[in-house]
Amino acid sequence: MTLHPLTRATLEAQLRQIGVERYHDRHPFHARLHSGQCSMAEVQAWVVNRWQYQSSIPMKDAAFLSRCTDPALRRIWRSRIEDHDGGVDEGGGIRRWLKLAEAVGLDPDYVASGRGVMPATRFAVDAYVRFVRDQPLIAAMASSLTEMFAPAIHGQRIEGLLKHYAFANSDSIAYFSHRLSEAPKDVAFTLNWVLDHAVTRADQTDALRALTFKTEVLWAQLDALWHGYVAGNIPPGAWQPGEGQL
Amino acid sequence: MTLHPLTRATLEAQLRQIGVERYHDRHPFHARLHSGQCSMAEVQAWVVNRWQYQSSIPMKDAAFLSRCTDPALRRIWRSRIEDHDGGVDEGGGIRRWLKLAEAVGLDPDYVASGRGVMPATRFAVDAYVRFVRDQPLIAAMASSLTEMFAPAIHGQRIEGLLKHYAFANSDSIAYFSHRLSEAPKDVAFTLNWVLDHAVTRADQTDALRALTFKTEVLWAQLDALWHGYVAGNIPPGAWQPGEGQL
Repeated sequence: MTLHPLTRATLEAQLRQIGVERYHDRHPFHARLHSGQCSMAEVQAWVVNRWQYQSSIPMKDAAFLSRCTDPALRRIWRSRIEDHDGGVDEGGGIRRWLKLAEAVGLDPDYVASGRGVMPATRFAVDAYVRFVRDQPLIAAMASSLTEMFAPAIHGQRIEGLLKHYAFANSDSIAYFSHRLSEAPKDVAFTLNWVLDHAVTRADQTDALRALTFKTEVLWAQLDALWHGYVAGNIPPGAWQPGEGQL
Repeated sequence: MTLHPLTRATLEAQLRQIGVERYHDRHPFHARLHSGQCSMAEVQAWVVNRWQYQSSIPMKDAAFLSRCTDPALRRIWRSRIEDHDGGVDEGGGIRRWLKLAEAVGLDPDYVASGRGVMPATRFAVDAYVRFVRDQPLIAAMASSLTEMFAPAIHGQRIEGLLKHYAFANSDSIAYFSHRLSEAPKDVAFTLNWVLDHAVTRADQTDALRALTFKTEVLWAQLDALWHGYVAGNIPPGAWQPGEGQL
């Protein structure tokens, strides 16, 4: 039995519902971070580990370009790499993430080396890069749609960090304020593209599965962070509080 | 500066030392399991999630065969697939794992479906399969050398399960008793192969790194299990106690 395709509105609603149910704004680590309950060691552990995610995003987007045969689509998608990598000498999300690292007292070279990232973080992030390289085009694109849910959490984060932590100011948390303007343009384009092109039920299911997968990638990183640094079970070889300080 | 190669004895000692420091026999979940402190829900969660590892091992070994140009090496390595997959109608480690699933009260079809496996488990196991597919041959082989450390943990497990859990008998835990005889032949061959072929310092470093990586794959699975089912933070979509029962 072939299932009828979902309407455009239903597909969009189902994509958004994945965010309601599974996006990592619901994870207890974020409640802890945004309400000022994290110790500085926990904040540092978050910065060290999330570097793995941030620094892999431009490679994820390059993986997408590497299998995208449509030059028009590549030209638009390329701005994601520019947003994260910046120019030869300045700018870009990963440089802004290292500014945050400095502000929380970490040596940015230590953070940029990736030493100390938990294996579980690497496994999750690598799964994302490979998903985008290997999966059907619609799935690869749809996996980026967690950005639909990101402005709300970035807003909460900016407010929570500024209110509760001495390190937070407009310079140190510029990564998040930039994402507030960058993400919406990407997401508007990609959501439309997915809704336009996922017209069979099979492709729609792929798109929904891809977005679910991506929420799992984000959630697993925070589970590992909590287990390691809130519950205090740091895996062998991972960053120890006190390591890599400025 | 080029580093001198390690002697054969030193390389072997350094490989074994990785086991002393990082093998998952040191993980608190195993102490809990082998001493009878796990609830049946925790045992079931372990069986559900470790299925992902068990069932991926023959694909991992097929990935190895798929990039191995030496027929002699392929012929020897192939027995690993046979050990795990068994024959068309019977035998094999993954069938024995499903026997264990039944014995602990789980529907073997549910377990075999892989539904309910935690995303973090999948990310770790997939990282292993891909490592073996993509990395240099020596690293791909060396990553299997955690089997050097397995007989001790299987011995403890057999003894601990039989002593503490009503479900345990020679039938239900046959997976582990078989591994006691299967693993040593594999490991003797592979250890010798790695010691014979890793003669430059670069290849030796690759071998040591590969074995460390593999300990991380195993450790991350138990960290996720503990966080989800001992500490009680089950990620969205993962197995819930009571699900998939016989």
